[in-house]
Amino acid sequence: MSGAAQPAIILVEPQMGENIGAAARAMLNFGLTDLRLVNPRDGWPNDRAVAMASGARIVLENTRVFETTEAAIADLNHVFATTARPRDVIKEVATPKAAAIELRKKAGHGARTGILFGKESVGLSREDVALADAIISVPLNPDFSSINLAQAVLLVGYEWFQAADDTPPVKILNEERPANKAELSHLFERIERELDARGYFDPIQQRKHVILRNMRNMFQRLGLMESDVRAFQGIIKGLTMKLKDRKDDGDPS
Amino acid sequence: MSGAAQPAIILVEPQMGENIGAAARAMLNFGLTDLRLVNPRDGWPNDRAVAMASGARIVLENTRVFETTEAAIADLNHVFATTARPRDVIKEVATPKAAAIELRKKAGHGARTGILFGKESVGLSREDVALADAIISVPLNPDFSSINLAQAVLLVGYEWFQAADDTPPVKILNEERPANKAELSHLFERIERELDARGYFDPIQQRKHVILRNMRNMFQRLGLMESDVRAFQGIIKGLTMKLKDRKDDGDPS
Repeated sequence: MSGAAQPAIILVEPQMGENIGAAARAMLNFGLTDLRLVNPRDGWPNDRAVAMASGARIVLENTRVFETTEAAIADLNHVFATTARPRDVIKEVATPKAAAIELRKKAGHGARTGILFGKESVGLSREDVALADAIISVPLNPDFSSINLAQAVLLVGYEWFQAADDTPPVKILNEERPANKAELSHLFERIERELDARGYFDPIQQRKHVILRNMRNMFQRLGLMESDVRAFQGIIKGLTMKLKDRKDDGDPS
Repeated sequence: MSGAAQPAIILVEPQMGENIGAAARAMLNFGLTDLRLVNPRDGWPNDRAVAMASGARIVLENTRVFETTEAAIADLNHVFATTARPRDVIKEVATPKAAAIELRKKAGHGARTGILFGKESVGLSREDVALADAIISVPLNPDFSSINLAQAVLLVGYEWFQAADDTPPVKILNEERPANKAELSHLFERIERELDARGYFDPIQQRKHVILRNMRNMFQRLGLMESDVRAFQGIIKGLTMKLKDRKDDGDPS
């Protein structure tokens, strides 16, 4: 991933070093490394940022500081502004997901991109929003839409990463072979044989047929893997062993 | 949004109150309010959690504390475990997005759901993962995949919130109830007890722990309904009965 292809993350007047560090960590979680600060309140570098970055120091070491938002985005071609409450501006308002797709597309066309995040207390000023081409607004619980700065960076980075990521939505780890019908039949016949040998069905002879069919239906439905069948064979073996304190009963195993 | 329809967020042995508070805030950002803690390191309630929750106090006030993960999920039907490095378990591994869709679907069918998050330093233990039906793994920069606890909660909550629009308003009527975790635990403990009583593990004592964990993983994965658990209880009862031609062994059933 080249630096030019990824969006710059621009924090405008961030107040807390902790949030800058947490934002850097969130960025690196998704492969983003171009962090820019506009007038950080507590100056730069910042020890609290380092403490919170948890190994994402490389992001902090390459962070650039600017005096104005305009200067921070001067080299960029397409800029999003994040805001919880888009107000009286005629601009596209995108979800993080839609913005991520747009960012990838712009970058694919050679554009340099960036995303503006405002200060913790009040967000971006109208003047900063006016510098952007479009707006990102995170869908949030309308009754509690105050989101932490680093969390906002995380969500945008997450969607940016997802937009290129080819992780299958669902996969099975170490997937083994599904059991075949012969294996299932052997398992089932063993259960039936062992139950019969113990007289399990004696008091319920009339319903034996239905019970066995239900059991077989259940086992079919469970989607057992070949290793699961072996596990069940082991369990059956164990359950049908004689009790330890009955060693004298002469039961051959 | 009713409490039953949303997933419980279960933090297992969280270490820092700050992270509990930040997780609570992230939850409320997406309308989640059922927070459960298993053995929080610094006890409960926790002032640092309150300070970090930023107005999400309601979540903290309703937080329940449990001594074991099993107790924390006893009333749930379908549980995801979040882990960065899924290891040698045969379980579905879902992205947060795919998991969110699944959670909505299960809830639509009346299941109570939950998501396990491990402690900051090492994540979930294999034993905790074994209690879950499936795994959530966040796609992350492979070179920097250490994600903050509250950030992980945020991403899962975000996708859950996002998935709401896609959920088909379909309910399956008369479908049976999925087994809950307490029922599964009882089943599993009975199998273990019966195997122990028969000395099944005697020759393989060293591997007993792993075998039991694998069995538990398997049963979690099978998606048993409440009636399936009853069927298995019946099978176990039958398999552990004394053999008919051994009536003289005095085995009390």
